[in-house]
Amino acid sequence: MANFTFQGKNIYYETHGEGSPLLVLNGIMMNCLSWNPFVRPFSRQNRLILLDMLDQGRSDKMEGPYTQEIQADLIRALLDELKLEKINILGISYGGEVALHFAVKYPSCVDRLVLSNTTCYTSPWLRDIGEGWNRAASDGEAYYYTTIPVIYSPKFYLENNEWMENRKKLLIPIFSNKAFVSSMIRLTDSASTLDLRDRISEIQAETLVISSEFDFITPPPEQKFIVSRLRHVSYALMPDCGHASMYEKPMLFASLVLGFVNNCETLYTV
Amino acid sequence: MANFTFQGKNIYYETHGEGSPLLVLNGIMMNCLSWNPFVRPFSRQNRLILLDMLDQGRSDKMEGPYTQEIQADLIRALLDELKLEKINILGISYGGEVALHFAVKYPSCVDRLVLSNTTCYTSPWLRDIGEGWNRAASDGEAYYYTTIPVIYSPKFYLENNEWMENRKKLLIPIFSNKAFVSSMIRLTDSASTLDLRDRISEIQAETLVISSEFDFITPPPEQKFIVSRLRHVSYALMPDCGHASMYEKPMLFASLVLGFVNNCETLYTV
Amino acid sequence: MANFTFQGKNIYYETHGEGSPLLVLNGIMMNCLSWNPFVRPFSRQNRLILLDMLDQGRSDKMEGPYTQEIQADLIRALLDELKLEKINILGISYGGEVALHFAVKYPSCVDRLVLSNTTCYTSPWLRDIGEGWNRAASDGEAYYYTTIPVIYSPKFYLENNEWMENRKKLLIPIFSNKAFVSSMIRLTDSASTLDLRDRISEIQAETLVISSEFDFITPPPEQKFIVSRLRHVSYALMPDCGHASMYEKPMLFASLVLGFVNNCETLYTV
Amino acid sequence: MANFTFQGKNIYYETHGEGSPLLVLNGIMMNCLSWNPFVRPFSRQNRLILLDMLDQGRSDKMEGPYTQEIQADLIRALLDELKLEKINILGISYGGEVALHFAVKYPSCVDRLVLSNTTCYTSPWLRDIGEGWNRAASDGEAYYYTTIPVIYSPKFYLENNEWMENRKKLLIPIFSNKAFVSSMIRLTDSASTLDLRDRISEIQAETLVISSEFDFITPPPEQKFIVSRLRHVSYALMPDCGHASMYEKPMLFASLVLGFVNNCETLYTV
Repeated sequence: MANFTFQGKNIYYETHGEGSPLLVLNGIMMNCLSWNPFVRPFSRQNRLILLDMLDQGRSDKMEGPYTQEIQADLIRALLDELKLEKINILGISYGGEVALHFAVKYPSCVDRLVLSNTTCYTSPWLRDIGEGWNRAASDGEAYYYTTIPVIYSPKFYLENNEWMENRKKLLIPIFSNKAFVSSMIRLTDSASTLDLRDRISEIQAETLVISSEFDFITPPPEQKFIVSRLRHVSYALMPDCGHASMYEKPMLFASLVLGFVNNCETLYTV
Repeated sequence: MANFTFQGKNIYYETHGEGSPLLVLNGIMMNCLSWNPFVRPFSRQNRLILLDMLDQGRSDKMEGPYTQEIQADLIRALLDELKLEKINILGISYGGEVALHFAVKYPSCVDRLVLSNTTCYTSPWLRDIGEGWNRAASDGEAYYYTTIPVIYSPKFYLENNEWMENRKKLLIPIFSNKAFVSSMIRLTDSASTLDLRDRISEIQAETLVISSEFDFITPPPEQKFIVSRLRHVSYALMPDCGHASMYEKPMLFASLVLGFVNNCETLYTV
Repeated sequence: MANFTFQGKNIYYETHGEGSPLLVLNGIMMNCLSWNPFVRPFSRQNRLILLDMLDQGRSDKMEGPYTQEIQADLIRALLDELKLEKINILGISYGGEVALHFAVKYPSCVDRLVLSNTTCYTSPWLRDIGEGWNRAASDGEAYYYTTIPVIYSPKFYLENNEWMENRKKLLIPIFSNKAFVSSMIRLTDSASTLDLRDRISEIQAETLVISSEFDFITPPPEQKFIVSRLRHVSYALMPDCGHASMYEKPMLFASLVLGFVNNCETLYTV
Repeated sequence: MANFTFQGKNIYYETHGEGSPLLVLNGIMMNCLSWNPFVRPFSRQNRLILLDMLDQGRSDKMEGPYTQEIQADLIRALLDELKLEKINILGISYGGEVALHFAVKYPSCVDRLVLSNTTCYTSPWLRDIGEGWNRAASDGEAYYYTTIPVIYSPKFYLENNEWMENRKKLLIPIFSNKAFVSSMIRLTDSASTLDLRDRISEIQAETLVISSEFDFITPPPEQKFIVSRLRHVSYALMPDCGHASMYEKPMLFASLVLGFVNNCETLYTV
């Protein structure tokens, strides 16, 4: 419901409610609309900020290749736009990766950090999986079957088969849109050089890291590595859940985020 | 900071703050004081109610044997005393078992339920472990070594060795007090007949179940069984954590409890 | 090194060594050559039988669609050809699924059964993943990126990057062969209707089920389901290993298979 | 069925069968008789050597305190007695710890090594648990309840309740024998200083490490540490199994040991 200009690009964002600001960073195929079911709980005590990053949703598309660092710079510009010095950030998947870039580059701007289903390194394995996604992008149906099932747990996909079939009908036309898939390819490519393994130990923000038991894109060892490097870190596992944790276990996901971001204490003396 | 009489026994409880009431039920060796580090976060948005159950802390001791059901009746009486019709409950270990009894017997009195490190069945294995605890009770040091290390994860015990050594010095004199250990024996015995396996499916309350990865008293399969039987349930795992989850991972523990109890939504339309 | 005819099709198989017969059933993209490193250990005490099933390796290709049941009938014919009444079977992935069909249809022909990385049900999730594979089949590189990374654990793929790059060079030309990928599509389709969930409890054979911790095609819950239904079953987990367990952990894989198949006892009186 | 003298003490051992020698090292409360159900499978292809270490079974008891290193020296003497230069070793729990001492001190004497439910470090946590065991030793029943349930998984204990009750009847009289529990105390104390964390990377032997999912004495992180330090190592997890893995899952246990020890290959070229 608001726009600003970043490096000549029009950027779309929304704010809801009042309170300690909580910026939410989308996964690769998501946009502000994806958070509809979370707007009410996330804006009750917080000023919720939703953002379509470059090549996402209602923000402008890019022409050529870039890296995730530009998305971190975009967030820095958004803080200026909103006249905020420090924010809480929730990032999921691609959004968590951008959050890591931001926290490393602009450490003083991060209050609390929630990293869900995030890696700090695009390994050859993940890069080649992304390559498979990009090669399927010329056909909407192929892109659906290559990118969507794998982000859900088999059990969720089975038990919510009707919902998944509806999503299939919804997504295939979108995935058949050339401009959309070109954005997806650029976003995927922008993550392909991610390697913050040696940098994340610099992060000072109080951080919550969330893994899903059946995350087949960024499996738990990725988050365990992050946890092993951070200083002020809590770590939660969502059992029986796939990569798209916010869709599979929304009640637990929202409880973790809100409980952590709004918890007054940072350290208990055990 | 308050008292009332239940079945001729003096019962001690405390309330802190205002808001949706949150009753906290202690583990077997705990009492109101154990929650000191949590009073501030738990009372910021909620009316926190701490309670020493029968044979705990500053409440009266019992003379003979009883079952956990009497503790559930005690909670019912506390609600009358506080003129409350419905409360949120957090129970850990023994407290979670009492919470299950209460939720089954007084379903309309439970708003949200958080069950941490809880079983709904004292199996022969757990009963025999309790038997070992009771047989060590005649000697304070023996009781310490038999009951305390096992409730922590080996890693926490190692990394917080100084804190554990201080606890040892603090606890051994307490464990050498005959009246105290007699209470502990009665509490342990009151749990020995617990078997709500066929009843918990009746629970209607929105429930969060929490497991610890290295809980060696009530291991994750116990909580998975509960999750498999409940209708409105979320399930979180605390990695790298022992049975005494509130001490080992206080930030995550408090985030889960507060986030879940105060989360406005119960169901997201996925 | 031998051939026979089944339903008008030429079938290729090999036998190595002498002893209790051990039939090995390939995963979907494998053939007799894939077992080269295992021929020596597997044939030291056993008569090892390698088999290219229909549409695999040097056996004839099919023209139209079929189900996995025909592969089970092929095995029955192979037993006649070899004049064997009963055999031990090791099946991995697709081969394990065929082994399940065979064990259900011809229970008296199975001595011991080893099921590695196997499911008894192609769920909508797995079927849609297979659909993604089939849609990538028109391009050798796309087929590689879509089907190969996901069958390895990220850690193995990273630590054996040179070996993986060599495999890439080896496989892409093969995957660019129209006849080959047509076979792959038919094999994938033949598994798409697999549903033995209600039948596997009939299996009487002493069985070893093997899971890989990071199997993202047939994750551990698939094997746990099988274990929960079988009567005479042992269950092993290969930590830190992907779907292609025989390649990632050959020493453990071979030890499990040989130890189980040649272990004289079936029941210890505990 | 044979004896020899080591440092003035009479040592009991047994050999069964012919073939590559396999020495089995007992857990703390075990003795040669404990392996009765395994004698037949373990001696079919191997020369099985069972050994009562100092303070175990039919070997002499010690008078004062000692460390596990003396047990390693005892094994060295046994090799001389048997005129063997190199052996395969299977050690479980205490036996695995002695095997580690032996492999570090006498590296050229170890062929293959199987370490089941083993730690290389008695942490403060494990030391304090041992302290609890020792303090319960004055009463046979207390010793049973303190030491036995915890070494089984809750599920096994429940499903084999009759067998456990029989064991209780069998063990309590033994645990009431002063000489026996004095031995147990000395054995427990001999392990209390174990710390080979900096030494195990020297081990060159091809090694199999086995964890149990519900091992509450030496949980899987202990074995993962060992695996992370060894060069030639395979790692297997026994799901749904407690510390006493040989009793809970004998078929899988024997298959792992035999498959690994007799597997001809040490390295497959992946």
